[in-house]
Amino acid sequence: MILIISLVFSLFSFSHASVLDFCVADLAGPIGPAGYSCKKPSKVTADDFAYSGLAIAGNTSNIIKAAVTPAFDAQFPGVNGLGISAARLDLAGGGVIPLHTHPGASELLVVIQGSILAGFISSDNSVYIKKLNKGDVMVFPQGLLHFQINAGGSSALAIVSFSSSNPGLQILDFALFKSNFPTPLIVETTFLDAALVKKLKGVLGGSG
Amino acid sequence: MILIISLVFSLFSFSHASVLDFCVADLAGPIGPAGYSCKKPSKVTADDFAYSGLAIAGNTSNIIKAAVTPAFDAQFPGVNGLGISAARLDLAGGGVIPLHTHPGASELLVVIQGSILAGFISSDNSVYIKKLNKGDVMVFPQGLLHFQINAGGSSALAIVSFSSSNPGLQILDFALFKSNFPTPLIVETTFLDAALVKKLKGVLGGSG
Amino acid sequence: MILIISLVFSLFSFSHASVLDFCVADLAGPIGPAGYSCKKPSKVTADDFAYSGLAIAGNTSNIIKAAVTPAFDAQFPGVNGLGISAARLDLAGGGVIPLHTHPGASELLVVIQGSILAGFISSDNSVYIKKLNKGDVMVFPQGLLHFQINAGGSSALAIVSFSSSNPGLQILDFALFKSNFPTPLIVETTFLDAALVKKLKGVLGGSG
Amino acid sequence: MILIISLVFSLFSFSHASVLDFCVADLAGPIGPAGYSCKKPSKVTADDFAYSGLAIAGNTSNIIKAAVTPAFDAQFPGVNGLGISAARLDLAGGGVIPLHTHPGASELLVVIQGSILAGFISSDNSVYIKKLNKGDVMVFPQGLLHFQINAGGSSALAIVSFSSSNPGLQILDFALFKSNFPTPLIVETTFLDAALVKKLKGVLGGSG
Amino acid sequence: MILIISLVFSLFSFSHASVLDFCVADLAGPIGPAGYSCKKPSKVTADDFAYSGLAIAGNTSNIIKAAVTPAFDAQFPGVNGLGISAARLDLAGGGVIPLHTHPGASELLVVIQGSILAGFISSDNSVYIKKLNKGDVMVFPQGLLHFQINAGGSSALAIVSFSSSNPGLQILDFALFKSNFPTPLIVETTFLDAALVKKLKGVLGGSG
Amino acid sequence: MILIISLVFSLFSFSHASVLDFCVADLAGPIGPAGYSCKKPSKVTADDFAYSGLAIAGNTSNIIKAAVTPAFDAQFPGVNGLGISAARLDLAGGGVIPLHTHPGASELLVVIQGSILAGFISSDNSVYIKKLNKGDVMVFPQGLLHFQINAGGSSALAIVSFSSSNPGLQILDFALFKSNFPTPLIVETTFLDAALVKKLKGVLGGSG
Repeated sequence: MILIISLVFSLFSFSHASVLDFCVADLAGPIGPAGYSCKKPSKVTADDFAYSGLAIAGNTSNIIKAAVTPAFDAQFPGVNGLGISAARLDLAGGGVIPLHTHPGASELLVVIQGSILAGFISSDNSVYIKKLNKGDVMVFPQGLLHFQINAGGSSALAIVSFSSSNPGLQILDFALFKSNFPTPLIVETTFLDAALVKKLKGVLGGSG
Repeated sequence: MILIISLVFSLFSFSHASVLDFCVADLAGPIGPAGYSCKKPSKVTADDFAYSGLAIAGNTSNIIKAAVTPAFDAQFPGVNGLGISAARLDLAGGGVIPLHTHPGASELLVVIQGSILAGFISSDNSVYIKKLNKGDVMVFPQGLLHFQINAGGSSALAIVSFSSSNPGLQILDFALFKSNFPTPLIVETTFLDAALVKKLKGVLGGSG
Repeated sequence: MILIISLVFSLFSFSHASVLDFCVADLAGPIGPAGYSCKKPSKVTADDFAYSGLAIAGNTSNIIKAAVTPAFDAQFPGVNGLGISAARLDLAGGGVIPLHTHPGASELLVVIQGSILAGFISSDNSVYIKKLNKGDVMVFPQGLLHFQINAGGSSALAIVSFSSSNPGLQILDFALFKSNFPTPLIVETTFLDAALVKKLKGVLGGSG
Repeated sequence: MILIISLVFSLFSFSHASVLDFCVADLAGPIGPAGYSCKKPSKVTADDFAYSGLAIAGNTSNIIKAAVTPAFDAQFPGVNGLGISAARLDLAGGGVIPLHTHPGASELLVVIQGSILAGFISSDNSVYIKKLNKGDVMVFPQGLLHFQINAGGSSALAIVSFSSSNPGLQILDFALFKSNFPTPLIVETTFLDAALVKKLKGVLGGSG
Repeated sequence: MILIISLVFSLFSFSHASVLDFCVADLAGPIGPAGYSCKKPSKVTADDFAYSGLAIAGNTSNIIKAAVTPAFDAQFPGVNGLGISAARLDLAGGGVIPLHTHPGASELLVVIQGSILAGFISSDNSVYIKKLNKGDVMVFPQGLLHFQINAGGSSALAIVSFSSSNPGLQILDFALFKSNFPTPLIVETTFLDAALVKKLKGVLGGSG
Repeated sequence: MILIISLVFSLFSFSHASVLDFCVADLAGPIGPAGYSCKKPSKVTADDFAYSGLAIAGNTSNIIKAAVTPAFDAQFPGVNGLGISAARLDLAGGGVIPLHTHPGASELLVVIQGSILAGFISSDNSVYIKKLNKGDVMVFPQGLLHFQINAGGSSALAIVSFSSSNPGLQILDFALFKSNFPTPLIVETTFLDAALVKKLKGVLGGSG
């Protein structure tokens, strides 16, 4: 087999510009329905595909004794357009990730430390709850209300991943009580007492 | 131009069996992630593509003075796999479609009669509310909490369509209070009072 | 339950910029295969998600005694990227929406007023026709030739929705006779008479 | 580097059953919106991924002096679910592939022999026509009316591929004149003369 | 607010059968391009959405001192159709996950224990390599060759997730040397020496 | 039938700007995960949908006696966003397209001249090989290693198409030996000899 180097280089005509195996988010560029614009390939480095933000425990000194640290496209530009992203859940003793949905993705949770009680509710009002121990995995179908609660005495840690680089996160209590959703409308659309709504808005910072 | 009929019929080799312009749901067949199995083409008729179920007003003699009548794939097999479906909203005077989400689709509402106050909440807790009159259209992005309220004195009617033949429907109050979601877990994941939760479960028929 | 407001606000680290529950079209920005660029979230208001253009009857004083009023992404920027859009069909007495296709979406029609004869033709040349009355629904699978005809004495109204925010609309007669498609090519590819083609081009404004 | 064979085989736990790199169509199984059911992997052979049906020239002894030979999923089960398929176009001297659409796919044509005049019409009634010589490529966007005409003296051959394993094929003249689409409705929805419609139905075998 | 229980239950007409928020795999049913058939909703339990198979360390007593334990749809039926799955990577000291691709998904890796050197190669032959420590995340775009190597003295553990419930896994050395890919063809298509190919086939169990 | 020209032109309200039947790539504009930005419709001509680059035989005077000439979106802007593209394979006598993958698309090959031995390897290390003659078609599922070898005495030609406008192309030997993938890492992740790796890097121009 005789190999002639000089010929090899002209073998294929692809220029660098035509390569789109990935689309690292250019956070300053235009955004479209499919995600952020792509960083120029010549400026992409290995650092774009790695993220250290999940290595640090979230601050759980708060009312829910829990923290969610996202690695979505806005934080981790390398996932843009790849249909995947992640987050870190820290749950101190008694910690709770309140009922929430991800409008744009299904979620897969892996317990890294401690034990977690997790569940979701389906469109026909069935409730699926599991106690998960270290190493256990649970999946939450797209758009359904779900929660995670520390089910052990000490702190718990979970890594979650999503079927989108931009899954969204709608926390029920924040949507209701940390927004400017007018109290009369909340009462009318949820059957909750106005007094309770006002109290929770006071706590969570909502208005209206 | 000489036309020879006998040759025409052998022009193209497609058999009927290879045609899949549509996939009318065979409700008795296996279901997969993309929807129901398709009815045999030879059994498909024009009736499969039409549905009269939305012609009849829903019964609004209930606590929300409202009714949702769906034309999803399970009711209207012709939409299976076509990425679209519909429903009818009837709102008597004072009627309310409580806060809910569609986990699998965006929704587009058209007011046919009366006026409707509608709104949704986004992942960053922004609230988008509009009063809609006859003929007005509003869109609710996939998976976000939204509501519709009769904003006029008399009954209102809206036709809604969805970007999926199976959008799902998760009504917040039903998920919480018409399910067997254990009260202590509801309290822990929503900040609501146990007493209120129990009261609403009593009303809506929940257990646990 | 002790609630500490000051801690709540640092709970989640999402900035507004990372939220992409929706992508209201920036009609002045670049367009890509998935749709228009997104308006900056800080400029999005409730008005972006509502549209009043379908509240007004289209002008049916024309040869087809009918009008199509679209609420696609170009008219109704809120639907951009959400996989749904709508249009209003007005059919005066004797009105006809001529044979047409939507290259990019399936269509779902709801009769709001009057009665409509509608139908489509599939790849195997089967014809599916239904007479639809007020409240009836019909679905037209993506890309297939279909039509709507006023089937009653007085005017008819239908609201249609599409499984795309940009369904496209190719009206057969306009494609042939309102374009500059050269007459000899039309004759060659449709079996129609040149004389007829020229006559219809004269009527509809085509050239070539 | 010490290599121990006996350990290698227990390295990964995938069973054959879990592999779904492809989904060769089981033409006898249920069909869903995403395509045919998959043949059992153990029965799949290399033959499933190859097809010889395009090696044979289609019979062009017909009124259009042309033939379309498809290699869609129903003919070539290996493409099922892979988002691609193909067909062969044979055009004798004077041959024409009449105006048609593919409701479910874009088309890419490569001229293998002879020269071909091809074109399509867009939603805004613009006409895009090109004369293509041997080796030239043309693309026809999904769902738009297009045609191919032999532009040389001798026979022409093209290979076309589609962005779906089941692109569909709706030939305008066949939809109108080889179907049972009632003549009065054709006249009403196309502006064509009833006499012409009846004549073409006579030629092409339509009824109604 | 007067609540009337008896009316509540007739509010919405959805039967259980119409609910398709998820599609737990029926491993015995037909498979289609979009995944496994769905288990009947009435048989679905919370256990279907959880999986304990990743809690157990894989056996790393093998030539690569590493193990991959998948939680794809075939092992974890709850992820079917949800666009996500996971796996566990165990790397003993000196452990290596050899060059491989996932034909059907992008991969996101989180280091749980130890440190890992990971990298991938793009279509333009650029190499992106990162040393990852505990908590670091890296993403590998769909279909590209990538690897993971234990970069510390002791064992390392990573959890990976995928943007598909069935990502596939093609290990380069296994494809070449653990298959029956004929040696002359390997030599011809890879530039490798026949002697080396035969030696590696001997080690890995390939034939041909 | 009375036709009134003056009314026709006001029939439909679509402006040219709203038409998005296609999205011809603006190679100078921003790129997103779904492809290039669209050229302004007013600047699109028929030339954008045709490409002559595959009419010219590739230069096979190289070590593999073969050439790949792509018509992807970067070369052929008309395919942008349409889910299809093409390439031309020229194989001189003894020519080989070495083992490679397309990370983003399935491939369909049609033999135009000569005969070709082609094959691919699946995730479970099964090898599917076929000898293809003129007119034969073969499909290669997305992301799997495959090859094509001239199986006749004289030159062979194939046209291939892809289920994406940007399929990518990762040639195994180029990824390993024409990149700067460090030799020790190649050895560690492939079981190949360092000496061989260095030799092939010398031939193909790799470094590291």
